[in-house]
Amino acid sequence: MERTVEVMENILDKNEQLAGEVNKSLTERGIFAVNVMGAPGAGKTTTLLNIIPKLKGQSFVIEGDIQSDIDTQKLAEAGIKAVQINTGGACHLDSPLIAEAIPTEDFGYVFIENIGNLVCPAEFMIGEHIKMLIVTVTEGSDKPYKYPLAFEKADIILLNKVDLLPYVDFDIDYFTAGVRKLNVNAPIIQLSKVTGDGYGEASAWIAKRSGKGL
Amino acid sequence: MERTVEVMENILDKNEQLAGEVNKSLTERGIFAVNVMGAPGAGKTTTLLNIIPKLKGQSFVIEGDIQSDIDTQKLAEAGIKAVQINTGGACHLDSPLIAEAIPTEDFGYVFIENIGNLVCPAEFMIGEHIKMLIVTVTEGSDKPYKYPLAFEKADIILLNKVDLLPYVDFDIDYFTAGVRKLNVNAPIIQLSKVTGDGYGEASAWIAKRSGKGL
Repeated sequence: MERTVEVMENILDKNEQLAGEVNKSLTERGIFAVNVMGAPGAGKTTTLLNIIPKLKGQSFVIEGDIQSDIDTQKLAEAGIKAVQINTGGACHLDSPLIAEAIPTEDFGYVFIENIGNLVCPAEFMIGEHIKMLIVTVTEGSDKPYKYPLAFEKADIILLNKVDLLPYVDFDIDYFTAGVRKLNVNAPIIQLSKVTGDGYGEASAWIAKRSGKGL
Repeated sequence: MERTVEVMENILDKNEQLAGEVNKSLTERGIFAVNVMGAPGAGKTTTLLNIIPKLKGQSFVIEGDIQSDIDTQKLAEAGIKAVQINTGGACHLDSPLIAEAIPTEDFGYVFIENIGNLVCPAEFMIGEHIKMLIVTVTEGSDKPYKYPLAFEKADIILLNKVDLLPYVDFDIDYFTAGVRKLNVNAPIIQLSKVTGDGYGEASAWIAKRSGKGL
């Protein structure tokens, strides 16, 4: 098992190194990169469809999926430029994949939609400036306690599908307490595609953090 | 990268070999093992809480989580014997973990609740007789297209939280067509903890498949 661990650490080191290079190149080009993480069906693409039009300048999306180009098609229909990465079976995106997918054109923002997975993506830097975690009220309020790393590493946390709160058991105080044990700084912003709530606040936070303004 | 792939194949081979041994031992002891897979918040524990009391004989649960013993506590409160495995960071259970967690007492069933993850658990045999996949209508109907392996390998598919169907976009025909492209045999049973629908049908299917009857 020691050899396995060593090889894994090597992979992680190489990934981190390339992530640093990707990040530096993006920064020099004035592109702000967001690593979008969340479980399957958390609403990652829908959130991007609603946030991107509120941001100043053009955005580009790198869409990560095991298989299919469903999300890239949705973005294209909305007039948002995007490229699809299909990992085959891999459970997260890594820096070599992103280094190849970064556009040569200049954009204000690159959003990298990671594989739907609350575990593995949090372990791998991919050149991003911030990590944006999307979780839903339908997943239950115990998620920070069960999947701590994603919550610990997030710079902004979007609590999605709050329109379903009347129909599910979700204890927002328990959820918030769990997040705050891991992460004191990330804002927790409630979102709903039904009411449109939260997209303005989330966009404003990203615009401020990127230094680009609204 | 070739060395990495080789090491990974070695790990998979060793895992499969031990899975076969675990499975053989369970079979000889008359214990039927179910690998329970699903994304975070799919309702894996709630489903076990509702299915287990309908089955003949005693059940034992092996609870897999990155961190926390929330689900083991829930099971204990309901009088169901369970043991917690915390993987620390690992995104799936594997055979060595299960080989150690299998009880020495005899039970009719062992349910192994895997890490909440629609990707990695599907790749690893852990000694189970069947894989039970739980997905929810809140995750969206495109999941079989995006995460094919879990659907392909499932022996039974439970579509959970159908009480929320009036409030979400979920195209059941599109979902079913996606599943059937990958898997023609697994029953797709609709579940709801609100109405109690589906637990009887799911228990009956498991009882029949295990040969134990109801």
